[in-house]
Amino acid sequence: MTPAFAPVGTQATVKAVTPAQLEALGANLILSNTYHLYLRPGDNLVAEMGGLHKFMNWTGPLLTDSGGFQVFSLSDNRKIDDNGVTFKSHIDGSTHRITPEKSISIQENLGADIIMAFDECAPPNDRAYNETAMQRTHTWAQRCLQVKTRPDQALFGIVQGGIFIDLRQRSAEYIASLGFPGNAIGGLSVGETKEEMHAVLDAVDLILPKSKPRYLMGVGTVDDLLNSTLRGVDIFDCVLPTRLARHNAAMSGRERLNLVNAAYSHDPSPIDELCTCYTCRNFSRAYLRHLILAKEMLSATLLSIHNLHTLLQLSRNMHQAIIDGRFQSFVAEKLL
Amino acid sequence: MTPAFAPVGTQATVKAVTPAQLEALGANLILSNTYHLYLRPGDNLVAEMGGLHKFMNWTGPLLTDSGGFQVFSLSDNRKIDDNGVTFKSHIDGSTHRITPEKSISIQENLGADIIMAFDECAPPNDRAYNETAMQRTHTWAQRCLQVKTRPDQALFGIVQGGIFIDLRQRSAEYIASLGFPGNAIGGLSVGETKEEMHAVLDAVDLILPKSKPRYLMGVGTVDDLLNSTLRGVDIFDCVLPTRLARHNAAMSGRERLNLVNAAYSHDPSPIDELCTCYTCRNFSRAYLRHLILAKEMLSATLLSIHNLHTLLQLSRNMHQAIIDGRFQSFVAEKLL
Repeated sequence: MTPAFAPVGTQATVKAVTPAQLEALGANLILSNTYHLYLRPGDNLVAEMGGLHKFMNWTGPLLTDSGGFQVFSLSDNRKIDDNGVTFKSHIDGSTHRITPEKSISIQENLGADIIMAFDECAPPNDRAYNETAMQRTHTWAQRCLQVKTRPDQALFGIVQGGIFIDLRQRSAEYIASLGFPGNAIGGLSVGETKEEMHAVLDAVDLILPKSKPRYLMGVGTVDDLLNSTLRGVDIFDCVLPTRLARHNAAMSGRERLNLVNAAYSHDPSPIDELCTCYTCRNFSRAYLRHLILAKEMLSATLLSIHNLHTLLQLSRNMHQAIIDGRFQSFVAEKLL
Repeated sequence: MTPAFAPVGTQATVKAVTPAQLEALGANLILSNTYHLYLRPGDNLVAEMGGLHKFMNWTGPLLTDSGGFQVFSLSDNRKIDDNGVTFKSHIDGSTHRITPEKSISIQENLGADIIMAFDECAPPNDRAYNETAMQRTHTWAQRCLQVKTRPDQALFGIVQGGIFIDLRQRSAEYIASLGFPGNAIGGLSVGETKEEMHAVLDAVDLILPKSKPRYLMGVGTVDDLLNSTLRGVDIFDCVLPTRLARHNAAMSGRERLNLVNAAYSHDPSPIDELCTCYTCRNFSRAYLRHLILAKEMLSATLLSIHNLHTLLQLSRNMHQAIIDGRFQSFVAEKLL
C-alpha cells in the first residue's frame, strides 16, 4: 500500500520497539542498513541464521539500502575510485572495501525483498562532484543489475545529480532506461532548500515511469511526506521519528513537542488529543516527562510508537485521500 | 491468584516493558517504590494526575512499599530516631524526613491497592540492632494503622528480626496481633544464608494467620520462589528479572545464560526451547547477542520479557500444582 513510510531498523531492529509493536502500528515496510549489518553481525551470519526476515523476526516486506550513503557519511578515511570504495569501519577502524558487486552480494546474503543499487551521494551544491558521482552511480547501477542473482529480490536504481535539474533529468532518464522494477531518488534532504528539493522531485516526476514505485530516500517529516507524495513519491524512509523519540521530542501534526519542557510537568493530556496510538490513548505528557527525567527506557519506546504512528497514519490518510479523489485538497488543508 | 510474583516498577514503570507487554505476560500485581516516587515526580503530582494506576497506566493491582528499605539502602547521611528517618536524596542531596505517618500519607497519595507499614530493616546478623529495629518497626506499624484513612487500600504489616528465630517469632506474633489484612516478611535476601532464610520462613509460617496472604519482600530467584512457597509465602517481588535483563543475562530454569558469550554468536536456538514467551517464540540467541553488542535497547526489552515470563509462569505452575494436590512433588522435581 502506497504511499508507504518505512521505519528504519538500522542494526536489524527499529530502535526501542518490538516487531509486534511495529505490526500493531501497521508498518508494512522496514528498512535496514547494509553498511551496519555488513560490519556487525556480518551478512554471512545473517544468512546462516536464515536471512534478515527471520533474524529480526519481521515477516513483512524488508528493504536494504546499498551501504553507499553510510560509507560516505559514517566511515573514516574513505577512498573512492571508479571501482568502489575503501573505508575504515566506524566501529573498530578495520579496513573494508565495498564495490557494486560486493554490495549486491551482501544484500543477497541479507535477503530483503527490495535491494538498492550501490551509489555515490555527493554534497548537493557541488556541480562538478555531482557530475562525476552521477556517472559513477550510473555505471555502478548497471554493474549491480548484471551481478544480481536472486529472483525473489527487487533491485531498485537510484537517481542522483544534486540540486542540478539538468543532471537529475539525465540521471532519471538513464536510470529509467535500465528497467529497474522501482526507482529511487537519492541525495536529497542532505542540506538543500525545500524549494530545490521540490524542483528536483518535479523534474524527475516527469521522467520516471509512472507504473513503477518511486522511493525518496531518507525523508521523513510530515511536510516532506505531503509535498513529496504530491510530486509522485510512493515510498519513504527516515530515522527521524525514532531519533526524535530518543531525544524526547514528539511529533504533533507539523509541530514538535519537547517533553522535557516544564510546561508539561502537570499536564494530564496526551501528546495529541486526536491521536489514536497506544501512547496517546494511555499516557499523559506529565508521565512521559517523568519517564524522561527519570531516564527510563520506556520513554523512548512510547515516543517512538507515537512518532511512527504519526507518519504511518499520515501515509494511510494520504492513501485514502488518493483513492477518494481528494488528495490535492487533503494536502492543501494539511499544509495550511 | 497466588503465589504471585510482582514485577517491580520502581519509578512508575517496569524498566523497558510497556503495561501492554506486562498484561500479555499475565502479571497481576506490580510493585512501585514509595521512596523513588516521593522524590520524583512527587506523590502530590501523582495524586493530581489521578493516582499511580492512571499515571503509569496499570489497571491491575498495585503495591507500594513503605520507603523504609530504600531510605536505609539508597539515601546518604540518614539519621534514624524513634519518630522517623531524616535523609538526603540520592538524586540531588536535598534533605527529607519520612515518618510512619508521612509514609502512609505518601502511599495514600500514590493510591496503590496494597500499601506497606513503615519499617526499619537492619543488617541480618546484628542481634542488638535487630532488637531495636524490630521494636521500632512494631511501634511504627501501630502508628501506620492509626493514621491510615483510605478504605480502598489494604495496609500490610512487616515482620522483622533478622536471622534470629526468637525475634522473628516475637515479631510475627506482634504483627499478627495487629490484624492487618496481609503480612509481610522483611529483611530477608539481604546477606543471610539460604538455611537462615528458610529457618525464618519456617518459624513465621507457624505464627502468621493462614487466612491472610504472606508477602516475602525483595525475593525473586526460581529457587527462592519454590522454597518460599513451600514455606507458606503467597506474594513475591524482585527487580532481579529486569535487572538481569539489562545486564544481558537470561534466566533459564534455575540457570542463567550470559548472552554476550561468544558461544551464542551462531546459535539459532531461543534462550529456552520449552519457553513460550514472546522472546523465545521469535528470536534466536544469536540475534539477542547481536542486539547486546550493538547496544540496542531492544535487548533489555526482550530479555525482560523472557525473565519476567520465567517467574510468572513458575508462579502459575505452582498455583496449578497446589490446586492439583501435587505441590510437594512439583517442588521436589524442580529442585532436583
